[in-house]
Amino acid sequence: MTPRSPIVGAVELGGTKIIAAVGSGPGAGILARERFTTGDDPAQVLAQVTSWMQDASHRVGQVMAIGIASFGPLDLDPSSPTHGFITTTPKRGWAGTDLLAPFRHAFPSLPIALETDVNGAAIGECRWGAAQGLEDFIYVTVGTGIGGGAIVCGKPVHGLVHPEMGHIPMPRAEGDRFAGACAIHGRCWEGLCAGPAITARAGRPAEDLAADDPTWEAVTQSMGHALATMTLMLSPRRIIIGGSVRKAGQLGEAAFFDRCRLHLKAALAGYVDSPALRDEGLRSFVVPPMLGDDAGLCGAIALAQDS
Amino acid sequence: MTPRSPIVGAVELGGTKIIAAVGSGPGAGILARERFTTGDDPAQVLAQVTSWMQDASHRVGQVMAIGIASFGPLDLDPSSPTHGFITTTPKRGWAGTDLLAPFRHAFPSLPIALETDVNGAAIGECRWGAAQGLEDFIYVTVGTGIGGGAIVCGKPVHGLVHPEMGHIPMPRAEGDRFAGACAIHGRCWEGLCAGPAITARAGRPAEDLAADDPTWEAVTQSMGHALATMTLMLSPRRIIIGGSVRKAGQLGEAAFFDRCRLHLKAALAGYVDSPALRDEGLRSFVVPPMLGDDAGLCGAIALAQDS
Repeated sequence: MTPRSPIVGAVELGGTKIIAAVGSGPGAGILARERFTTGDDPAQVLAQVTSWMQDASHRVGQVMAIGIASFGPLDLDPSSPTHGFITTTPKRGWAGTDLLAPFRHAFPSLPIALETDVNGAAIGECRWGAAQGLEDFIYVTVGTGIGGGAIVCGKPVHGLVHPEMGHIPMPRAEGDRFAGACAIHGRCWEGLCAGPAITARAGRPAEDLAADDPTWEAVTQSMGHALATMTLMLSPRRIIIGGSVRKAGQLGEAAFFDRCRLHLKAALAGYVDSPALRDEGLRSFVVPPMLGDDAGLCGAIALAQDS
Repeated sequence: MTPRSPIVGAVELGGTKIIAAVGSGPGAGILARERFTTGDDPAQVLAQVTSWMQDASHRVGQVMAIGIASFGPLDLDPSSPTHGFITTTPKRGWAGTDLLAPFRHAFPSLPIALETDVNGAAIGECRWGAAQGLEDFIYVTVGTGIGGGAIVCGKPVHGLVHPEMGHIPMPRAEGDRFAGACAIHGRCWEGLCAGPAITARAGRPAEDLAADDPTWEAVTQSMGHALATMTLMLSPRRIIIGGSVRKAGQLGEAAFFDRCRLHLKAALAGYVDSPALRDEGLRSFVVPPMLGDDAGLCGAIALAQDS
């Protein structure tokens, strides 16, 4: 263990499950991990998480800090009276939950860092994965929902709240009558490309779709529009697409990424010129995560180590 | 003159005109200014600009640095062999122009800072205008074209190239058959809301349109979509809309902004919750520039002073 990789506690909170870990990095660096069901009683499950972490800290190595990457929306403004709270989530029981208090109570002397799940995943990919050496990039997850975390000049973007990229308005392809599946916006990006949207359009889930199902063309075309919007708005050096949809059933991950890249190129139509946006460059401009499903958890480790 | 407001040279390069100035700030802080026609011979006009600036520097006060805010796309990567060049512009004569060399030649010992026109305007509004005290905001110009400059954590966003927000894909309102006016993308934001798009849709220019012309509803609805995309992508604390379209002919600037704010609110549909995005907050979330047409020039002064 070097001074640069202390053992820390890490928590990734998702809408379905919470993963807690004690460790110093990805892979073998994770010394202990546990899975909890998120449920609708935050006080109860957070007490289980902190209790497990106190125990794991005794068993495998004393933690020096805690990092938390969570679903939101979150209040990340350090000057706010509700700093560290989940704010307006539709997730039952979780609106108004103070995520920091249970950890402060269980680990009173330790620094505790909090980020959004996607900013966390971006930080993890930057430290150990597909964005090493980059200061300007985006991590998006396309799964049950869509979210994006942006790193600009090496720091996660917060601003007024934090980005909520999954809900951007989207163009409609000529002749497409699909109404979209977002309960709030209909045809926003999440309403067109998240798992439930694919199921609603195709009549069955993404993992059951044939490689030549026309739904893949509609979905990857919309992905191209969203990738173009990200490129034009934030000028990232790379966009990492995580989440389950990229696995793309019988189409497969490689073909899904190729089609997304082609549709991104078509949407930009040569307007932004950079080697990164030409054919070969595109293969390293739009990429899958290297840490897979552990990106967020590893990001929480990195957050804790930096705190 | 305090040490914080030295006299500097400033240049704003636009597609039609170039404004050069010597001064230390907006208004009375501009000690001399001159207008040049951009034309299609960069070497000639840049020689005129540098010559005027040498002369003005002798007349009104020795300049300590030079700031340039220019149309682009620009190469802003300090490690690039073409750093400081205009790259792929369709503007005749200007592709591949080295903007820094003529100033380095004329002012060999001075620091020279370069930014995009919209990042420059953002920096000007931050120092002396509508974004004072803010570290995260966006300046967009909606005029002959559309461009946006983003400030994140107090610094202009560059990334891979720099943002080109005017060309984001846009949703189509139900029943709208307008094909859009962007030569490259058709119905991108610029193709729906820039001056030429309004003229193409309405059959006459924006300044001649009646207040109840239905074109204003289409334009401000699309502005709402673009403002929502910016809010969801970058989470700014404020969006400043400059450029000529905001003056909105017989509709007027105040009504144009009110309609843009309403359409932004409708597009977000309550998904992002912040006081800044509720009714009263929206009035200071989407605002006109305070420096008017001098935002870019003042930004060039600020850039020079910081260099």
